[in-house]
Amino acid sequence: MPCPLPIKDYPRILLAHGGGGRLMQGLIDKVFKTAFEGIGLQSTHDSAVLDLDAGRLAMTTDSYVVKPLEFPGGDIGSLAIHGTVNDLAMAGARPRYLSVGFVLEEGLEMEKLWRIVCSMRDAADAAGVRIVTGDTKVVDRGKGDGIYLNTTGVGVVASGLRVDPSAVEAGDAIVVSGDVGRHGVAVMAHREGLAFEAPIESDSASLVAMVHALLDAGISVRCLRDLTRGGLATCLNEIAASAGRRIEIQEDAVPVDEVVRGACEMLGLDPLYVACEGRMVAFVAPEDAARAAEVMRGFAPGEKARVIGEVTGDDRALVVGRNAFGTRRVLDLLSGEQLPRIC
Amino acid sequence: MPCPLPIKDYPRILLAHGGGGRLMQGLIDKVFKTAFEGIGLQSTHDSAVLDLDAGRLAMTTDSYVVKPLEFPGGDIGSLAIHGTVNDLAMAGARPRYLSVGFVLEEGLEMEKLWRIVCSMRDAADAAGVRIVTGDTKVVDRGKGDGIYLNTTGVGVVASGLRVDPSAVEAGDAIVVSGDVGRHGVAVMAHREGLAFEAPIESDSASLVAMVHALLDAGISVRCLRDLTRGGLATCLNEIAASAGRRIEIQEDAVPVDEVVRGACEMLGLDPLYVACEGRMVAFVAPEDAARAAEVMRGFAPGEKARVIGEVTGDDRALVVGRNAFGTRRVLDLLSGEQLPRIC
Repeated sequence: MPCPLPIKDYPRILLAHGGGGRLMQGLIDKVFKTAFEGIGLQSTHDSAVLDLDAGRLAMTTDSYVVKPLEFPGGDIGSLAIHGTVNDLAMAGARPRYLSVGFVLEEGLEMEKLWRIVCSMRDAADAAGVRIVTGDTKVVDRGKGDGIYLNTTGVGVVASGLRVDPSAVEAGDAIVVSGDVGRHGVAVMAHREGLAFEAPIESDSASLVAMVHALLDAGISVRCLRDLTRGGLATCLNEIAASAGRRIEIQEDAVPVDEVVRGACEMLGLDPLYVACEGRMVAFVAPEDAARAAEVMRGFAPGEKARVIGEVTGDDRALVVGRNAFGTRRVLDLLSGEQLPRIC
Repeated sequence: MPCPLPIKDYPRILLAHGGGGRLMQGLIDKVFKTAFEGIGLQSTHDSAVLDLDAGRLAMTTDSYVVKPLEFPGGDIGSLAIHGTVNDLAMAGARPRYLSVGFVLEEGLEMEKLWRIVCSMRDAADAAGVRIVTGDTKVVDRGKGDGIYLNTTGVGVVASGLRVDPSAVEAGDAIVVSGDVGRHGVAVMAHREGLAFEAPIESDSASLVAMVHALLDAGISVRCLRDLTRGGLATCLNEIAASAGRRIEIQEDAVPVDEVVRGACEMLGLDPLYVACEGRMVAFVAPEDAARAAEVMRGFAPGEKARVIGEVTGDDRALVVGRNAFGTRRVLDLLSGEQLPRIC
């Protein structure tokens, strides 16, 4: 959408913009309501009252503290929409409603806030989700890094659908939806002012349409998980632990962009542990593996989807990577994230 | 609940506690899951999948940045539960599920986090709400003031029930549930190290039981609003604007604790504009006014409930206060909050 800033009188955020008075009203009316017009936020009451179709409710929350606020391929606003709708999609839910909590730093440029709010609007619109309620707080200069965001989402899960690590079975195939590690390296490189032979853009994207295409195609989906902090290896460890199963992957089957791989080598990072924000793994029945990858390839964030491994009959929760020579290594959980503050 | 800290190896929060790896797993398992055991957070999946009884869904979000984190009568944890369940109750909803997003500062004492998490648990338990999903981020030392919290809640609104500023009618009576200004003054005094003749405690409390007692008693409730940032006068201004009605209140009918009044005089504050966190106004049919106040007085946060004013036939959105001599003044919206960072 075209984005002329609709507030002229205050070029920067003041503490009073979070104080509940006239300035806060102006910020909400001119900035948030203008940006989110048509995609929600109609009521001025404390709670939004909403209709849901029949089914069970899925609910998820995420706070976003990424530094810097804007990076190649996205910003904290689009990231906060994608991250939360993706978490809902991973439970097999159709995202319906989002809340947004803004923690703004005194002195934040109004223009930057407006760009980020517009980016949220576009991302929410594309994901088919409505932003129905919000909150604004302002903290003192030097705190808060400009903007921290929280988005919480609710969605509807079709009755009878169970997409959950506990549904994972021995023999299930593991499909990754695309190349990994792009988001973490893009944010890191931008933050540190590193330049590579080609620009690296974040993969931040909504996976909602791709997930529902898989479900609508009748693929036997056991479990879905988006690859965020800790990347593919951490995600697989979490599922191995929840399911109580050993997982094996073919490491050279995992797509990694050549520039991302080079950057990781230079920085001493293992791309299997670097965060994505628009990639997922699907655990599916083995006979559906090839078809699942094919369905994913019909969507931009799934273009490079590939079958990368399987769940074994071994009930020791463990993730093992095989390399091209057949050598195996344990892909353990790291103690922290290699790259802090990337989401 | 008794609260021995269940994590011994890390006395302070590290950046790696937000990194998605082993340390974050430990924090979630030992601190959050232990504290919230029995009141939610069972799934390790990205979204919680929930059942809702029939009815419409209410949804609300609030971020909390109160400084200091602990104050007489409460802390950021109980405040974050009360604030969000109260917002749901103000829509006539029964709160069901909460999400919690933690933004923690590197270096935060684990003991302090644990106290606050236990306080959340107790408040959620008392309000009958389950904490079903959460998120943890860690920001660098010097940012984030120890803890910022976001709580987002969903609840169920009985079908046919409409509690909303647009339901306000000329002639409606306005009932306030208790003395005003206590929370803002308590936080301010504690922050600035001020001592008064008697200690002032925050009024932070859940209003859920009181609201449902009003509805169950068959009181014709048009609109409910809890008194948070900007206090009673700001709240009445918002409703006057939404309803397009002039509101008049008898200023000396508004209960204000004597110590709070004295503190306000000393600090140059108008208690009508100071935040509460456990008080509300109810707009009810005039014939139900006395009974509404009586129902409220059956609950601790409603002990001092009183009828304080009425909605007039005048359609100019305005709030007017009458003093004991019959003199009127306009209670206008302030540009900001008198006391920043009190919630």
